[in-house]
Amino acid sequence: MHALIAYMGNELPTINEHLDSCVRRLDPFVQPIARHVLNAGGKRLRPLLTLISFRAFGGQGDPYPMASSLELLHSATLLHDDILDRADLRRGRPSAHLVYGRHAAILGGDALLALGNKIVAEYGDARLTNAISEAIMATATGEIREIAQVGNMSLTNAEYLEIVTGKTAYLIEAATRCGALLAGADNAGVEQAAQFGLNLGIAFQLVDDVLDYASSEEEAGKTVAADLREGKATLPLILYLESAAPEERNELQELVRRIGITDMGNTGAGTQSDDVQNNKGRAMSQQDLDLVIAAVQRVRETGAVERGREIAAGYAEAARASLQGLPPSPETELLGEALEYVVRRNK
Amino acid sequence: MHALIAYMGNELPTINEHLDSCVRRLDPFVQPIARHVLNAGGKRLRPLLTLISFRAFGGQGDPYPMASSLELLHSATLLHDDILDRADLRRGRPSAHLVYGRHAAILGGDALLALGNKIVAEYGDARLTNAISEAIMATATGEIREIAQVGNMSLTNAEYLEIVTGKTAYLIEAATRCGALLAGADNAGVEQAAQFGLNLGIAFQLVDDVLDYASSEEEAGKTVAADLREGKATLPLILYLESAAPEERNELQELVRRIGITDMGNTGAGTQSDDVQNNKGRAMSQQDLDLVIAAVQRVRETGAVERGREIAAGYAEAARASLQGLPPSPETELLGEALEYVVRRNK
Repeated sequence: MHALIAYMGNELPTINEHLDSCVRRLDPFVQPIARHVLNAGGKRLRPLLTLISFRAFGGQGDPYPMASSLELLHSATLLHDDILDRADLRRGRPSAHLVYGRHAAILGGDALLALGNKIVAEYGDARLTNAISEAIMATATGEIREIAQVGNMSLTNAEYLEIVTGKTAYLIEAATRCGALLAGADNAGVEQAAQFGLNLGIAFQLVDDVLDYASSEEEAGKTVAADLREGKATLPLILYLESAAPEERNELQELVRRIGITDMGNTGAGTQSDDVQNNKGRAMSQQDLDLVIAAVQRVRETGAVERGREIAAGYAEAARASLQGLPPSPETELLGEALEYVVRRNK
Repeated sequence: MHALIAYMGNELPTINEHLDSCVRRLDPFVQPIARHVLNAGGKRLRPLLTLISFRAFGGQGDPYPMASSLELLHSATLLHDDILDRADLRRGRPSAHLVYGRHAAILGGDALLALGNKIVAEYGDARLTNAISEAIMATATGEIREIAQVGNMSLTNAEYLEIVTGKTAYLIEAATRCGALLAGADNAGVEQAAQFGLNLGIAFQLVDDVLDYASSEEEAGKTVAADLREGKATLPLILYLESAAPEERNELQELVRRIGITDMGNTGAGTQSDDVQNNKGRAMSQQDLDLVIAAVQRVRETGAVERGREIAAGYAEAARASLQGLPPSPETELLGEALEYVVRRNK
């Protein structure tokens, strides 16, 4: 993993400089919102993957605008997500919508989406713009599906994977796909790079969801079991419930309902789902908090966390297989290291 | 105006069919939200302008995807706007965020933005994608500026025009620009078409703002003086305050502050502007409502409504001048008729 860390250390200043030059293209009114979310200490995973994929295929020319646009688009989704999740903190700092207001966060996200698209359009290659638009559609769709399933403790593994793929993996797929496209890779190479990104993205989100159950609050830097508290069934819980007694599921369903998250999965579209937001401000009773902690404990004890990591590792292996389709190069090695990082990370 | 109405009657079914085929490209989860906003009875002004501009330059090929994408992008901004404005009704029907929830409306808007971009990208002409991205950035920026000035009864005419141009005119500019680009117009022609759209767009919004003071509730189909109630200073009010006694401005400023819209103009970014949304639910006292009605009455009595229409007509004349740069054709005549429609409309 040392080579990857060295590479990141080398690249981050350049990426951040480019991002800053992108932000200066925004209207002065929008710049502070954009900087707030961009400077929150993200790992720049997507731009790095674009750069590495580009170089793995021996690309010539300037990949930094393309790489930057991936981070701009990702940041746009973060701005909108934090509003949806009513997240108060983003990597330990107050979320943009608390600092600048919900209106400005929605519109700032729109401006970042447009800027990301514009920078991609400037390459004059419709395949790039196509890939990016597809990815943004998939991201929004995945998030809508996730919202529609909030409060549904009977979410299946397949439904869960569809959500994960949409909300996280497609944008990472676009990062590696666009790197390869920009480098002039042939169709087969582009598809292998894209497939690598997609499976890496799925693994990344699965590990994220596993960590929500695995970490102590200090390690994670955020509330543990936040997903369960928000009524979201994720991998460890789904694995646990597969072998739990039916009453367990019913009790959890009741708990989730009680702590104020209405069951949108059953009522579906056409309901006043704003209730979810309104209810979210409500404080949980100590009794319910104890029940949440007990549930997390049971999930952990049945080994669901470890099994979740194994499933994530399976996607990482699928991603590794795609690397066979990339030219052998130091950068292709780095992509292999990125897989290890994703699977092993503890926060 | 008969030719324009006949043209609209002819084109609307085809535009609507194309829009429906676009919506079917969205994930089934997103389609109902998209249909809800698209079928709310919009005038399809933007797609019509794209078609007419395209044909005025003798364009060959299929302009419908381009025209449709303008309506998709406009609808995306409506979805986000209605959340910001806490609008309960959109053309007499419940707003999408009330039917599907705020989350789904934000993400549905994101999906529509991406779809609009994708359809434009499929033409494989970076100038089109560029124009569209610029327009979306300008729209979001204009709206952010508007929000930043909510509650500021000292808004200048210049600041107001900058907001109007951003939030409305640039997308209409993109509609006529992209029609000309797609038709293969030369640079001068493209710029004249764009200039026409920009000035038409400004006139359109100015008339909108004038109608907010001019109409009775029945005529307008919505709350009268909604802008003032929301703390937005628009053209008739700005014109009125220019010649009113300073105490008038102070009283209005106090009124706006009291009816629950915090003065974000003075506090600027960095404040808890969510307060605006929270306060908006608060009912106005009968006394304050009477003061609002009295203010509207005074604005009307000083002729600010008529002067507002004259200013709008000035922008329409500027737009008309640009038509000299378009090839003489029945469609160029239609664009002239569109100007009349925009300036004369009563709702």
